[in-house]
Amino acid sequence: MKEQRFLGIDKVKISDDFWSRLQDLVIGTVIPYQYEIMDDRIEGAEKSHALENFRIAAGESEGEFYGMVFQDSDVAKWLEAVAYSLAIRPDPELEAKADRVIETIGKAQQEDGYIDTYFIVKDPDHKWADLHEAHELYCMGHMIEAAVAFKEALGKDSLLNIMRKAADLICDRFGKGKVRGYPGHQEIEMALIRLYRVTGEKKYLDTALYFLDERGTKPDLFIEESKTRDIKIFQMDPYDLKYAQTHMPVREQDKAVGHAVRAGYMYTAMADMASETDDEGLLEACRRLWDNITTKQMYITGGVGATVHGESYSVDYELPNDIIYAETCASVAMAFFARRMLELEVKGEYADILEKELYNGIISGMQSDGKRFFYSNPLEVVPGVSGVLPEYAHIDAERPGWYRCACCPPNVARLLTSLGTYVWGESEDTVYAHLFVGGKADFSVAGGVTVTTETDYPWDGKTTFRISVGSPRDFRFAVHVPGWCWDWKVIVNGREEEEYDLIDGYVYLDRTWADGDTVELDLEMEPTRMYANPRVRADIGCVAFMRGPVVYCFEQADNGEDLMALRAYRDGKLSVHRQRLGGLGEYPILTVKGARLIDSGELYSDEPFDTEDVTLKAVPYYLWGNRGKGGMRVWIGEI
Amino acid sequence: MKEQRFLGIDKVKISDDFWSRLQDLVIGTVIPYQYEIMDDRIEGAEKSHALENFRIAAGESEGEFYGMVFQDSDVAKWLEAVAYSLAIRPDPELEAKADRVIETIGKAQQEDGYIDTYFIVKDPDHKWADLHEAHELYCMGHMIEAAVAFKEALGKDSLLNIMRKAADLICDRFGKGKVRGYPGHQEIEMALIRLYRVTGEKKYLDTALYFLDERGTKPDLFIEESKTRDIKIFQMDPYDLKYAQTHMPVREQDKAVGHAVRAGYMYTAMADMASETDDEGLLEACRRLWDNITTKQMYITGGVGATVHGESYSVDYELPNDIIYAETCASVAMAFFARRMLELEVKGEYADILEKELYNGIISGMQSDGKRFFYSNPLEVVPGVSGVLPEYAHIDAERPGWYRCACCPPNVARLLTSLGTYVWGESEDTVYAHLFVGGKADFSVAGGVTVTTETDYPWDGKTTFRISVGSPRDFRFAVHVPGWCWDWKVIVNGREEEEYDLIDGYVYLDRTWADGDTVELDLEMEPTRMYANPRVRADIGCVAFMRGPVVYCFEQADNGEDLMALRAYRDGKLSVHRQRLGGLGEYPILTVKGARLIDSGELYSDEPFDTEDVTLKAVPYYLWGNRGKGGMRVWIGEI
Repeated sequence: MKEQRFLGIDKVKISDDFWSRLQDLVIGTVIPYQYEIMDDRIEGAEKSHALENFRIAAGESEGEFYGMVFQDSDVAKWLEAVAYSLAIRPDPELEAKADRVIETIGKAQQEDGYIDTYFIVKDPDHKWADLHEAHELYCMGHMIEAAVAFKEALGKDSLLNIMRKAADLICDRFGKGKVRGYPGHQEIEMALIRLYRVTGEKKYLDTALYFLDERGTKPDLFIEESKTRDIKIFQMDPYDLKYAQTHMPVREQDKAVGHAVRAGYMYTAMADMASETDDEGLLEACRRLWDNITTKQMYITGGVGATVHGESYSVDYELPNDIIYAETCASVAMAFFARRMLELEVKGEYADILEKELYNGIISGMQSDGKRFFYSNPLEVVPGVSGVLPEYAHIDAERPGWYRCACCPPNVARLLTSLGTYVWGESEDTVYAHLFVGGKADFSVAGGVTVTTETDYPWDGKTTFRISVGSPRDFRFAVHVPGWCWDWKVIVNGREEEEYDLIDGYVYLDRTWADGDTVELDLEMEPTRMYANPRVRADIGCVAFMRGPVVYCFEQADNGEDLMALRAYRDGKLSVHRQRLGGLGEYPILTVKGARLIDSGELYSDEPFDTEDVTLKAVPYYLWGNRGKGGMRVWIGEI
Repeated sequence: MKEQRFLGIDKVKISDDFWSRLQDLVIGTVIPYQYEIMDDRIEGAEKSHALENFRIAAGESEGEFYGMVFQDSDVAKWLEAVAYSLAIRPDPELEAKADRVIETIGKAQQEDGYIDTYFIVKDPDHKWADLHEAHELYCMGHMIEAAVAFKEALGKDSLLNIMRKAADLICDRFGKGKVRGYPGHQEIEMALIRLYRVTGEKKYLDTALYFLDERGTKPDLFIEESKTRDIKIFQMDPYDLKYAQTHMPVREQDKAVGHAVRAGYMYTAMADMASETDDEGLLEACRRLWDNITTKQMYITGGVGATVHGESYSVDYELPNDIIYAETCASVAMAFFARRMLELEVKGEYADILEKELYNGIISGMQSDGKRFFYSNPLEVVPGVSGVLPEYAHIDAERPGWYRCACCPPNVARLLTSLGTYVWGESEDTVYAHLFVGGKADFSVAGGVTVTTETDYPWDGKTTFRISVGSPRDFRFAVHVPGWCWDWKVIVNGREEEEYDLIDGYVYLDRTWADGDTVELDLEMEPTRMYANPRVRADIGCVAFMRGPVVYCFEQADNGEDLMALRAYRDGKLSVHRQRLGGLGEYPILTVKGARLIDSGELYSDEPFDTEDVTLKAVPYYLWGNRGKGGMRVWIGEI
């Protein structure tokens, strides 16, 4: 029931001031750096052993398994990002390196298709014995995604052939009338649906559907399993049913609960499945969950999964800025989910959240040098508190280095390198521009259309689309008008066009297009004050600032040490001007008139504290923490 | 170096609408109820076994020790409260019950004076082997306090004779040239100083001084002990030096850190010691610690010890209202500390904090029926969050029943029954009224003066002191003018008096007093808006309300379910009127004009949310949670 489908990575080319720079960072730094990490070549980094585990399993090396039970997933996510990166920028040396890794994976794979180095090397007697904790389906799922990426991005079958054998094993083993099962960490569902799409093999889809539908049925698999299994990897509580979303059948779920990455991957698979099978029940569940997340459980930055306890969704409106979790990976998962919903239904609300995630909660994860990463993404950092007090132990005031098994960095890498597949879409008769990203895209609509996009988004609201067609063609050109924008112009071939349909946040231009036609969308982009729903108690009395899709924040580097004493005037002048930020480059900075409360030394006073006027300076949130350690606030008191 | 000393319990009689009712509750309900608890007669209550432990140790019964290592302290605190209660209201049956308990304690005591049922019954080989965790000095300290109370309040020596033997043992064992030691939980220091005062035996003072001065010296005792001892009661970390304030010598400490009750008992002992020994160094340390607590680490309710992690002081200005700890016992300890500081220096700031604790953070601990108690005292309770989410597991939205070893209820009981010793003081030539509590007090100033006090404080600002002297006498009459009051009248014999000294928050009237003279202090008592220091980030954008010393709060019972959406208008009318509160009686209630933000359903909006005018109703904070389970806020958003 897809309304439109996104273009494949082979159909798009990004050439964009904002995103190309980030892609270059991933391709030039993150991907090579992660290889060195996985190969244990970085001095001072935590031991990874991820590649060595495969070499040992393959008989190429000797030794013991080392690392987390899901250590293989790092290699998988790296390979997936490599595939996309090679599509963006061919690199024979990198490709050869990946091929060698794939060859090793092939050798490590067992006769029956099984591939998981933890169990092959360390504990062969317990394969499949602990679906709750052992992450086999998760790791194989990631490797299947990598295999699909190699096929889609480069046309290469080597990893696909390996992982089809693994997928066949999974499909043979699990299902109605076979072994009962579903994964402790969802991922395999998404992977099998992707594999189905690239191979056309229906059993992959069927098994994905089985995993989705079996989940949450009684008796609970993980409770049953815990009664008999003699393997215990973590101390996970099988009775905590919400953690892995096994508390009720997925079609009945209506509130996002539990581990936010597990949840996001599952919702993504549900949406994918709905679009493949025209399953209204699943689509309805997706809509309910989407609605719950985006109207009750999401930070203004797109962060989701508010609590570090279980890295989980919390309860509605419980969005603390300081003891927050908001894992980078959970925002990546929300981008996945948004993309799938946008395929099902072309609605601006999905594109709005997609851009919110992309410009804020995802890229905030990565240091400007590409070498350090946030896992949690706070909206308030307090020197001497964040990362110091026990409740705040998980809050980093600076991006830490890679962890032993670093889930977030490779997730950011695979998302950014595949960004091209999030921007443009098409249906039978319509070309869609969902995001404003410079580049070129080839559509099959109307026999073939190419659109070249130029933009300085998100810093400027004007985007120009240039249409290349051999001869005039009839088709619809649709472009998203972001929800943050209240004033825009549509300009066709230099003249303002007032005849268009505006449906669900999209402008539709239905006409005969000639070669060289241009569409310009000019979005008025003023800095804006934002207020949180009154039920969000963390934000009472506070205001946040955005400009376009970009959330801003106040850093100590610009506003001095005591951010707590700053207040923004509700009616104070709010301006934007470009400014260099240390070594980060030049950016539009917001300034707002405000006040600094003068600390009289009293702890409590029966008079409001005196103030002195100040000019507050806000910088894009995703850039925070790049200029030394210090306080930061997104929400600031308003007076 | 005492400037004045408080009257003993035998010199005072409280007769006061506010406090007599609370004392009656303690005497009529809490004390008998606690006996039943300790004797395991309350169905459904957690097993205490506290009395049975003593009976077993005494050979009166057979069985095993049961309970916490500090289970004895419950009996000690009960006895102390009983002593004071018998001074307020003789009760031969209760006295006989206490005498039987004391007799058992005497039988349980070992030949050498040792008395601790955990070690006598359960683990005799490890007496004194674990000063860090074993609480022997803590339990004996509490029992010494009870013994002193029996002597002071009733003139009875029975428990004193027992506990002097224990104190002698402690003094023989610990000290310079003897065994090195200090307690893991301070208490013995206060106790030994009280014992010194009542007996005149200087070694008790010397040993208390030894414990204070040895603390925080290197090498750390608990670290050393942990290397060799073969007993482990808890999993306490000996390297967490701040927890029990062993991080530096006590005279050098300048920030309140660690477990707030341990800290409060130690500061109290330091102040006591300073006054007994004219020790300027200790007094300076007390002033610094007092200043740190009261200007940087205290809730507006007097709550201290902001974090549940270690039930500890946190860092300056870190005063979350929701994940707060603020243990009732820590407020009791602050009242102890304030009373000692007020003996050293007659300054209004000490009396202000004393009354803040008494009218807010201490009595908030007790349910109106005297049977349920708060241990933590939140300033913000959110239905579905407090007591539910992991970070909030320790926050009770209703007072729970007694715990197995319930530290707070008997602490409240002993404080309230000894309240008479906090109200009136005297020096050579001055009679002091530190608090406004109705009753009668006998001073030795000028050959003997009796003052009778009538007041409806804290609900009314007017207090009348009536002086009884046989014949005219010269002395100073001093009365505290609370820091919250900016407008007052002093009326002597019906005429306003403008000739008085105002020194450090006290009015001094120096004259010849005749029998029947009256002093009236008439404090203007208007409801007041309060603002927190800008560094207290939890209170940004918020206002709290007080009237006189009483902090108010907004409860769901009066303001509906969604307290988060309420805002008080900065300039809105603020009124007071008397109203019945369910079964609690009639109280002055505050009403303030405000707004309810209308939830548009949006999570974030670029417009402030619409509002509708409402009248907000605030009730005294200490009464909260007596009318069913629901939300509560002290600090409320202001617009």
